[in-house]
Amino acid sequence: MSKVLRINMEDLSHKWQNVKPAHKTYAGRAFTSTILSEEVDPTCHPLREQNKIVISPGLLAGTLAPSSGRLSVGAKSPLTGGIKEANAGGLTGTRLGNLGVRGIIIEGAPKNSKDWYSILVGKDKCEILKTNQYAGIGLYDLIGKVWKDHPTKPGIIGCGVAGQRLLENAGVFGNNIENSDPGRYAGRGGLGAVFGSKRIVAVISDGKGGSRPEAKDQEKFDEARKTFVKSLNAHAVTGKLKDDKGEPYGGLKNYGTNILLNILSEAGGLPTRGFRSGRFDKAAKISGEAVHDLVDKTKAKFGDKAEGKYAHACHPGCVMACSNIVPYEETGKQHVSPLEYETAWSLGANLGIGILHDVAELNRLCNDIGLDTIEAGNTIAMFMEAGIIPFGDGPKAIALLKKAYDEDSVEGRLVSSGAQTAGKTLGVTRIPSVKGQALPAYDPRPIKGIGVTYATSTMGADHTAGYTIAAEILGIKGKVTDPRDLKKAELSQAFQATTAYIDSTGYCLFIAFCILDDDDGFNAMKTTVDSFLGEDIDVTSYGKDVLKKEREFNKKAGFTEADDRLPEFFKTEPLPPHNVVFDVPDEELDAVFKGF
Amino acid sequence: MSKVLRINMEDLSHKWQNVKPAHKTYAGRAFTSTILSEEVDPTCHPLREQNKIVISPGLLAGTLAPSSGRLSVGAKSPLTGGIKEANAGGLTGTRLGNLGVRGIIIEGAPKNSKDWYSILVGKDKCEILKTNQYAGIGLYDLIGKVWKDHPTKPGIIGCGVAGQRLLENAGVFGNNIENSDPGRYAGRGGLGAVFGSKRIVAVISDGKGGSRPEAKDQEKFDEARKTFVKSLNAHAVTGKLKDDKGEPYGGLKNYGTNILLNILSEAGGLPTRGFRSGRFDKAAKISGEAVHDLVDKTKAKFGDKAEGKYAHACHPGCVMACSNIVPYEETGKQHVSPLEYETAWSLGANLGIGILHDVAELNRLCNDIGLDTIEAGNTIAMFMEAGIIPFGDGPKAIALLKKAYDEDSVEGRLVSSGAQTAGKTLGVTRIPSVKGQALPAYDPRPIKGIGVTYATSTMGADHTAGYTIAAEILGIKGKVTDPRDLKKAELSQAFQATTAYIDSTGYCLFIAFCILDDDDGFNAMKTTVDSFLGEDIDVTSYGKDVLKKEREFNKKAGFTEADDRLPEFFKTEPLPPHNVVFDVPDEELDAVFKGF
Repeated sequence: MSKVLRINMEDLSHKWQNVKPAHKTYAGRAFTSTILSEEVDPTCHPLREQNKIVISPGLLAGTLAPSSGRLSVGAKSPLTGGIKEANAGGLTGTRLGNLGVRGIIIEGAPKNSKDWYSILVGKDKCEILKTNQYAGIGLYDLIGKVWKDHPTKPGIIGCGVAGQRLLENAGVFGNNIENSDPGRYAGRGGLGAVFGSKRIVAVISDGKGGSRPEAKDQEKFDEARKTFVKSLNAHAVTGKLKDDKGEPYGGLKNYGTNILLNILSEAGGLPTRGFRSGRFDKAAKISGEAVHDLVDKTKAKFGDKAEGKYAHACHPGCVMACSNIVPYEETGKQHVSPLEYETAWSLGANLGIGILHDVAELNRLCNDIGLDTIEAGNTIAMFMEAGIIPFGDGPKAIALLKKAYDEDSVEGRLVSSGAQTAGKTLGVTRIPSVKGQALPAYDPRPIKGIGVTYATSTMGADHTAGYTIAAEILGIKGKVTDPRDLKKAELSQAFQATTAYIDSTGYCLFIAFCILDDDDGFNAMKTTVDSFLGEDIDVTSYGKDVLKKEREFNKKAGFTEADDRLPEFFKTEPLPPHNVVFDVPDEELDAVFKGF
Repeated sequence: MSKVLRINMEDLSHKWQNVKPAHKTYAGRAFTSTILSEEVDPTCHPLREQNKIVISPGLLAGTLAPSSGRLSVGAKSPLTGGIKEANAGGLTGTRLGNLGVRGIIIEGAPKNSKDWYSILVGKDKCEILKTNQYAGIGLYDLIGKVWKDHPTKPGIIGCGVAGQRLLENAGVFGNNIENSDPGRYAGRGGLGAVFGSKRIVAVISDGKGGSRPEAKDQEKFDEARKTFVKSLNAHAVTGKLKDDKGEPYGGLKNYGTNILLNILSEAGGLPTRGFRSGRFDKAAKISGEAVHDLVDKTKAKFGDKAEGKYAHACHPGCVMACSNIVPYEETGKQHVSPLEYETAWSLGANLGIGILHDVAELNRLCNDIGLDTIEAGNTIAMFMEAGIIPFGDGPKAIALLKKAYDEDSVEGRLVSSGAQTAGKTLGVTRIPSVKGQALPAYDPRPIKGIGVTYATSTMGADHTAGYTIAAEILGIKGKVTDPRDLKKAELSQAFQATTAYIDSTGYCLFIAFCILDDDDGFNAMKTTVDSFLGEDIDVTSYGKDVLKKEREFNKKAGFTEADDRLPEFFKTEPLPPHNVVFDVPDEELDAVFKGF
């Protein structure tokens, strides 16, 4: 029986509650967005006592369903001013699933406290610990300390110095399965700053004494999850590392998400040097292929001592294993884990930086400081756009980002504050943000559908909210939807609704590559959810219900159709090499949620 | 016959147009807000080519009506994202009135230009001059250069380095009547940055060859204006310097607007040290009385060489003469002109600085750099709130503000970007802004009506938009409306509508002190307007019509009721010494514009 843990940070108390009957099918994003819409005043200040943090493992977290251990974190976002759900892998989803915790709701804030706290969650127990020793330090250090203090390899999520200082690009870190890299980010929307506002550095989930959640119809569940594993393993994107002949097979396992870098650059949709071009001449040097080669090279050179890796799982039980560990070329030791496509783009192509080491170092710094990499790259781009540092200069970008450690550095605070704030401060009029959140790694001018998602998502510009790239660039069922077609409202809505469902199940969004192509895989996936709950859940209705709550929250927070728009420069500046602008009419954007 | 000058900065062309028949009664704010609502897309980026600058002298500018030479500047505001009108004295209103220019509309922007331009307006002529020598320098220097290049003492408005760098607290400066102080600011809302975005440093209005505008019924007009002068001279606030016995009489002439500092501190409504107290223990030291004494003292010491002054007119023909020139105590030479109440508050009490010299120096720096003082003081307060510099430290505040000269200084850009952006960057959750614009010098917690105006004004937090202080603190007709009374929607609406009318006539808002008390004065004022136009203008309907257009613009820009609210901390943090919060219900706020 799942429980809800409700924590009050004003008096440092907690209580365990039953899941409300009306919430029984809600987990992950459905749970966080429902609690926020029911309990948080949408007009409240996101970094003061009225906001709440809601943490919820996906429905199937802790089960043997493949790749189902994602964790959702929600709050009113300090970056967008609207509702926010961000999710990540790591250990915490699985741990909380095993502990039978459906969600943690953190309310209030200590009054005038200078102390920092951590929350320790275990089997039927919760302690709120004073842990000033965890504050003010890098997150690699923090994870090391926590794992030393709690030797059961707990899941850890929380905020770094950026969040502790209430800076708006503070992400919520999570720890890797097997090492101290804090690279499992529920990064977007500044939720780390909400942790900071409640004086919480870490939420530590100790799985000891936990057990696997049981499905209502366990037999059906087990059968379905096995079928689903087969489907995932058979797909060219999500499949096995090598084919029967021993050749590289699964795109994600071999090259990770960063397999996209060359593809998008070729397609002319890779935003380069602050969204000035769609093609990056150094794409190959920072691509997934380059990481793959570097791993192989260091393995050959350093043998067992080499720490680099591809086909690395971001959470227990992930069969897609799209993550990686990027090694230092010189030593083979771990540099950063993971280097994702979005990061290679934001801290690489978007800054005109084509040196893998520099990109990895910027990534490592973000992970250590507690920053979302997508937003951080866009923020550094604002400094470049304003002429403070030049495009393409890795060492200067690294030096700028390092200032974020220094509490007294105004530049350090600005570089931690997101692209919108940095751009406005620096007099930039080409700020690639929607609802205050910066754009990810797909230029909306040549790929219209993703632009429709960016504009209309409840989350601000977010590729994961409705990943039309799957249809527009990668091709579902072998058929590519023309990326230049302007009629994309229906496509974006379908992706957004399905995503809201997936984000609630604990499944990683990347199962979409497989289930969109393979009906058996889709049915097996759906059966795992239905048999777990003992209900027949309609994927689209469930997702739409979540989106409706999120839209309603944002409306009360003051969002209107004017917020469902891309920045002006996308409509007036043509993007080379295709020299196109974003010309989807406003009516098409408003059609996405018409009737919602 | 008045004309409209339309300038296109993309191709550097201009044309003269007739005033549209539908616009014939519109001038000042009514003109700027009408043009913006008819011609500017409310969702456009305020600092890109689609925004327009509209400049319009008040209806009676250039006539002999007393204190009627105010100039309105309008655009979509980069600070608020909504419509903006800011007005000021100086020479330009009178010059344009004499030249028969109802308005100047500046459209477009040069493409990829590195050049800076000035617009020279004369009798039936306009030249767009390349004036790179005016850019990148302090505004005292700029005015000196322009007056040297154009020896006819033209009116000058434009932007300083802050505006040239597109920073969001850039005000539009105007020159003083007789010296090179650029202290006549249409300061609020960042309109200086809109000048910068169009690559315009200065608009120079050469009155040579101009003439006094003629009223439709000149006889009636002349009679009315004389009656009005008598009414103004007889009032204790707006009246003569000395009474019949030679004692100080008119509050404004003797002490300027800064007569309010002690009054508000006594009333417990003077926001002190970042809105943490309503009373400032050093109020007397930076008050209007202190300036008066300093002027007298330096006059006694330096005789004719003393440049300090009270009873100083901000524009030709002002009979209230509430302005001043603050001298250096050591030399008697001019330090800054003017030091207004709002500035003494924002750069003094609000920062905990009680040394007149330091406050005057901060004021002078703002004037030279091109910053609105109200917003600048609130911005520096954010640095203090965040612990970057301490409250009360004048020299550190001065050093911080000086960084704004340096284009490469990120701190300098941030201190020029307004309180909202600086506060967010620095992790401050007590940002005193509404619609992105910082609050002026009256704490809304003990004085509810002004809070209602701050929340609901189309302009963001703006005391001049509906100055209920006149009723709540100063007492109209000898009767004070209880400042703690929560029913203030009607009061605020009445003030906002009347203000929109006054802001269109060219009259200074301070005539309100007199016309609210003296019905003869009110009637005479109204008669000047009616006889000038040859129409019977209803004050309230006219004002409401302007407000309706502004509200409609803001609605299309994405504003909702959620934007008509004060920041959360005003509702939760009691203000000493009265220990009250802002408790006006949302329904009362929404009642201000119900039916609009």
